[in-house]
Amino acid sequence: MCEALPVDINLDSSKYTDDDIVDPWTVTSKSESGVDYDKLIKRFGCSYIDKKLIERMESISGKPVHPMIRRGIFFSHRDLHTLLSMIETGNNFYLYTGRGPSSESMHVGHLVPFIVTKWLQETFDVPLVIQMTDDEKTLWKDLTVEQSMKMARENAKDIIAIGFDVNKTFIFANLDYMGRCSAFYQNVIRIQKCVTFNQVKGIFGFNDSDVIGKIGFPATQAAPAFSTTFPFIFGDDKVPVLIPCAIDQDPYFRMTRDVSPRLGFIKPALIHSCFFPALQGPKTKMSASDVNSAVFLTDTPKQIKNKINKHAFSGGRPTQEEHRKHGGNTDTDVSYQLLRFFLYDDEKLESIRIAYNKGELLSGEIKKIAIETLQPIVANHQAKRKEVTEDILDQYMTPRKLNYEFNVKFKPQ
Amino acid sequence: MCEALPVDINLDSSKYTDDDIVDPWTVTSKSESGVDYDKLIKRFGCSYIDKKLIERMESISGKPVHPMIRRGIFFSHRDLHTLLSMIETGNNFYLYTGRGPSSESMHVGHLVPFIVTKWLQETFDVPLVIQMTDDEKTLWKDLTVEQSMKMARENAKDIIAIGFDVNKTFIFANLDYMGRCSAFYQNVIRIQKCVTFNQVKGIFGFNDSDVIGKIGFPATQAAPAFSTTFPFIFGDDKVPVLIPCAIDQDPYFRMTRDVSPRLGFIKPALIHSCFFPALQGPKTKMSASDVNSAVFLTDTPKQIKNKINKHAFSGGRPTQEEHRKHGGNTDTDVSYQLLRFFLYDDEKLESIRIAYNKGELLSGEIKKIAIETLQPIVANHQAKRKEVTEDILDQYMTPRKLNYEFNVKFKPQ
Repeated sequence: MCEALPVDINLDSSKYTDDDIVDPWTVTSKSESGVDYDKLIKRFGCSYIDKKLIERMESISGKPVHPMIRRGIFFSHRDLHTLLSMIETGNNFYLYTGRGPSSESMHVGHLVPFIVTKWLQETFDVPLVIQMTDDEKTLWKDLTVEQSMKMARENAKDIIAIGFDVNKTFIFANLDYMGRCSAFYQNVIRIQKCVTFNQVKGIFGFNDSDVIGKIGFPATQAAPAFSTTFPFIFGDDKVPVLIPCAIDQDPYFRMTRDVSPRLGFIKPALIHSCFFPALQGPKTKMSASDVNSAVFLTDTPKQIKNKINKHAFSGGRPTQEEHRKHGGNTDTDVSYQLLRFFLYDDEKLESIRIAYNKGELLSGEIKKIAIETLQPIVANHQAKRKEVTEDILDQYMTPRKLNYEFNVKFKPQ
Repeated sequence: MCEALPVDINLDSSKYTDDDIVDPWTVTSKSESGVDYDKLIKRFGCSYIDKKLIERMESISGKPVHPMIRRGIFFSHRDLHTLLSMIETGNNFYLYTGRGPSSESMHVGHLVPFIVTKWLQETFDVPLVIQMTDDEKTLWKDLTVEQSMKMARENAKDIIAIGFDVNKTFIFANLDYMGRCSAFYQNVIRIQKCVTFNQVKGIFGFNDSDVIGKIGFPATQAAPAFSTTFPFIFGDDKVPVLIPCAIDQDPYFRMTRDVSPRLGFIKPALIHSCFFPALQGPKTKMSASDVNSAVFLTDTPKQIKNKINKHAFSGGRPTQEEHRKHGGNTDTDVSYQLLRFFLYDDEKLESIRIAYNKGELLSGEIKKIAIETLQPIVANHQAKRKEVTEDILDQYMTPRKLNYEFNVKFKPQ
């Protein structure tokens, strides 16, 4: 889950009436500027994270929201107001996110949901569970169980390198954890009893030729949204959950929310991120076989420089003269988009935007800023990842009690 | 699985061209003498256990086959010749059977597959795994996870009371064991990757309104047919398996056999039992809500006497005079059928058959023999079951190494 990038599994798109296809396996758009999020919010039936909601979050947490929320990278939500009301009245909650492990190295776009998740965890001091859907990868890809399990562990190291507190974070891979805690399978069965083939057909576009593993899988991604899947953390308590993820994962949680009342849980709250652009621009499909479509977490500073200089789609004009005269377009410029994700100095970002749109800043110059922003982020990640030994990984992946103190600055008067 | 009796879940029967419906959830027949097994063997594509095969089993094991095999109660098989050839060349194998735990007490018919399984285990000194499909019961019945798990443990006590050697027998309930051994879930996923919805639709009659748990479940019943589901018993070895079960369970194992080569296993061998008659006769549906349809393992001697006297369908004539003159019919007489299952003295059984068909033996008399045969079997079972404590149950249900010596008397010359 939370695979922010399009993958190469085709799905019957006949049911889509507009030009964007967004589901857990396919994200494509025919528009230059990418997916139309207004339409998507309408189609999915979720809500914008608006100014009022952001102010409420800041008031409750006692600190400014993360730039990715402020800038509308996390742009959509479900029931966040309800969750905030529960927080205000002293209810604890937990965070759930995840990743479908893949063979290729993770790229900078994969960091997005985890960065905001980490911010949420630190802000509220709550427990976090991270699901590695290695079973999903086995079912959907030409990968054996063993290969998927290995990838889950390797990808988990990258997630740990982001800096999650081991005392508050449980990372689990389905092909391993299913055999370590009966409560997980029991919840999967409870969910699978509530959902018909007709429903998953409607939600995920499955058809009669799909293997039965795919048909059952949505319940496995749904189960961690119920706190009883982790008895060693929550005991029998029914603890509310907030799920940060890319919007393409929303279908799983629409299904989960439908099931929740039948299992005696309140519906999970969600915040959704938009998609991370491929270097070639939001219209182009990022491909695992094309190493030039993304900045990977294993890239050297030189590779980052070359990739962005050669491949990052430019919103600039064909000639320097024209650019100086008419200005560039930050809406389509990938280097600027990268800065929106990773340059957290608001004033600096805004001055770059104005300068680029006016033509004061050239394409080569904005690319240089993007390169210099990403290089230390990636280098720092590599250094942190080197420190993640198998032993450390095992610590995160061991079912155990977590130590956290639910932390709310704001008390309503 | 191995639910020898019809249960009350309806399935769309439009696909059946004859009068018998036989699948894991429904067994009904419009014929007085019950299911037409000739037609069934043809439709399922399995083979009769014939004289030659019985002789071969006796030659290899060095002892006569169990009466239930000799009498054609276990009447059908798949690949038993192949398994016997492997045994002859010194290949070990294991036994796999199971039960769908149910709320009502088990009845004497439920003993059938276990009695022959026990005989096979003792004859060849091989390991045995017994699956309690409590997950299936949750999915198909109006039962919670907790209720099904409780039933699985209670039913397992009855199975233990049959006398399986704890050193050679592993009993597991899916809702528990799935969370105790990752190899189980990993094999489930491997199987679920090989089977499409179209296939389970064809095999089990599932449709789009079925819940996704049902659609995925056949893989969970298939997985124990692969020895790697039990790494603590078999390590990585791919050990052949023999599955004794009632013929209604065959669809699961047709599917399993289709998948086997893709998982690098040889196809499981099977032996199938016919159905156990309801007291009201082979045409009547045995019902959990009708305590008079079967002799239960909890019945008192008096209850057994009353049930058989009052409810056991008689193949006798309306009056004693007519009976003496024309003789009774052992083909439809339920008391005689019960003796076929439980009276192991061949000569005595044959003399009863002849006397009843000649009219020398009256209905009341054959009922008396049936009563006196079943009363000590049930009483003995109750005594043995009383000895099965929670601790003993836990021993059987703990994943562990088993101690067995593969035992073949016959060596080919």
